[in-house]
Amino acid sequence: MPIHRVHRLLASATALAFAAGAATADIENYMDFFEPLPALPPIPADNSLTPEKIELGKMLFFEPRISASGVISCATCHNPALGWADRIPRATGHDGQVGERNTPTVLNSGFLEAQFWDGREPDLEGQALGPIEAEIEMNLTLEEAINRLNEFAIYQEHFAAAFPDDPDPINPQNVAHAIASFERTLNTPNSPLDRFLAGDVQAMSDQQVEGMKLFVDAGCVACHNGPALTDSNFHRFELPGSTDEGRFVVTGDEADMFAFRTPTLRNVAVTYPYFNNGSVPGLHEAVQLMGQQMLGQDFAEDELDALVAFMHALTGEMPRVEIPALP
Amino acid sequence: MPIHRVHRLLASATALAFAAGAATADIENYMDFFEPLPALPPIPADNSLTPEKIELGKMLFFEPRISASGVISCATCHNPALGWADRIPRATGHDGQVGERNTPTVLNSGFLEAQFWDGREPDLEGQALGPIEAEIEMNLTLEEAINRLNEFAIYQEHFAAAFPDDPDPINPQNVAHAIASFERTLNTPNSPLDRFLAGDVQAMSDQQVEGMKLFVDAGCVACHNGPALTDSNFHRFELPGSTDEGRFVVTGDEADMFAFRTPTLRNVAVTYPYFNNGSVPGLHEAVQLMGQQMLGQDFAEDELDALVAFMHALTGEMPRVEIPALP
Repeated sequence: MPIHRVHRLLASATALAFAAGAATADIENYMDFFEPLPALPPIPADNSLTPEKIELGKMLFFEPRISASGVISCATCHNPALGWADRIPRATGHDGQVGERNTPTVLNSGFLEAQFWDGREPDLEGQALGPIEAEIEMNLTLEEAINRLNEFAIYQEHFAAAFPDDPDPINPQNVAHAIASFERTLNTPNSPLDRFLAGDVQAMSDQQVEGMKLFVDAGCVACHNGPALTDSNFHRFELPGSTDEGRFVVTGDEADMFAFRTPTLRNVAVTYPYFNNGSVPGLHEAVQLMGQQMLGQDFAEDELDALVAFMHALTGEMPRVEIPALP
Repeated sequence: MPIHRVHRLLASATALAFAAGAATADIENYMDFFEPLPALPPIPADNSLTPEKIELGKMLFFEPRISASGVISCATCHNPALGWADRIPRATGHDGQVGERNTPTVLNSGFLEAQFWDGREPDLEGQALGPIEAEIEMNLTLEEAINRLNEFAIYQEHFAAAFPDDPDPINPQNVAHAIASFERTLNTPNSPLDRFLAGDVQAMSDQQVEGMKLFVDAGCVACHNGPALTDSNFHRFELPGSTDEGRFVVTGDEADMFAFRTPTLRNVAVTYPYFNNGSVPGLHEAVQLMGQQMLGQDFAEDELDALVAFMHALTGEMPRVEIPALP
């Protein structure tokens, strides 16, 4: 090879290396806006995460006898086969009744600082019992649920093992603590984003990286941040066709009218359909609507594609759960 | 020890050995009435049991989108957590409708030579599609079910892999073949009876052995025989309170009025409640009723206890199934 061509090649390589360095620095600035998913969410001081509670919580999660009909369990709407949600617009419960809201996924829900679409409970312990009693969901009094569990010797053993200091361990609080404990194990690590943040530059496609940058530049990250990509805060959002008053129902504060908790974006590609009433079936439309409503911005087609590609980079490894054999 | 005492001990030991020998021969006669559960049931020549079909069949078994509501799958009534049945008297299906019959377990159903309580289908391939179309179960036309499956690229891939010679593989027959293939893997080997038959004399308690002998002597084994402890044949049985005409509905033959297929007794202790309308909650009453109705015999209390103990020896190892992640 003639020497001048070698010189030119070297010059090009230097220029490329410089550009790559700049691009890396640039991307690292964007990466600072994101957090990898920790292996476990915060654990409350009064509910130690023991293997016995997790095992019991798993049994209770799959237990349909704590519904009036005997056929609805937590896993009915939070179906492990369907991203731990139900993939229908609004939840179907007792006697085929259809509720007002879309079932949120249980995945990574331990990272949320407000539970339910309206945040009426602060934590998983507070959330766990609501659907058992709700008339359009499982429709059973807690008293009757406890009576039914008490009939099974195996539950007596499991509650005693999970709550060894409690002389009468089959009670609503312990049901909630056990279910919450199981749910804290339902996390989805190692998504493409997580691997990218850990240094694996191959983990996301160029389009996904573009989407990540746009997600920051456009301002999506203002609400969708933290390990679960949600601020666990409430934002007014007028979904066409929805009359749900959202957070207002909880607080009575006009400022909360039509406000809903920011949903997690982790696994958003496998937890369709979208929004409080599940009326939007696809990610493309969901992202478009968010841009218009929350950011006052009409994304161009290639921007939407990049943002949707980035949403797919938020799908992590599903927990592998073997169905328990119930008594 | 004085020599005469040694003599007496030896004589006693000889007598004991002789008695034990006689007892063993006696028990072996009884054991001849039973068959250990094979690892696999018969496989039809036109539905080779491939890993691809089993995997696809598992997805379809857990797939609620092949129901009108989008919330009912095979696993709803054949719940893996509940002995692959539902533990309620009669199945609850579309819109909370309650059917006429108790859900039979899928466990070991490949060993049955007649499917459904009335035997209206001969095999699992014939059985699989019925509940999808039944208005009180999943309530979806097969055409619509196929359309829905076709929407998912992952199903297109899985059907193509399972049925590589079929140019248009997403069709009702292949749905049935895949589900049947998965179901043929849902067997429960190594029950106490199976281990006992294999020579492990400790596997059943003395009471269970007594129950086994009584099961033969009283004549239960006349219908409950073969690997699944059923003759897959139809027997008239007038259950108090039941108006179900049973096999007659299929054949129109008066001799079949109120006749039902002998249910498998494998896992009978974990597949309560009992009989065609699930009206009997416990094994004790179920065995008593069977004695009265089928054998014209009122079992004594200790006989009932022994027979019930033997029923518990028929619970095998549950299949360990990880819930599939559906598209």
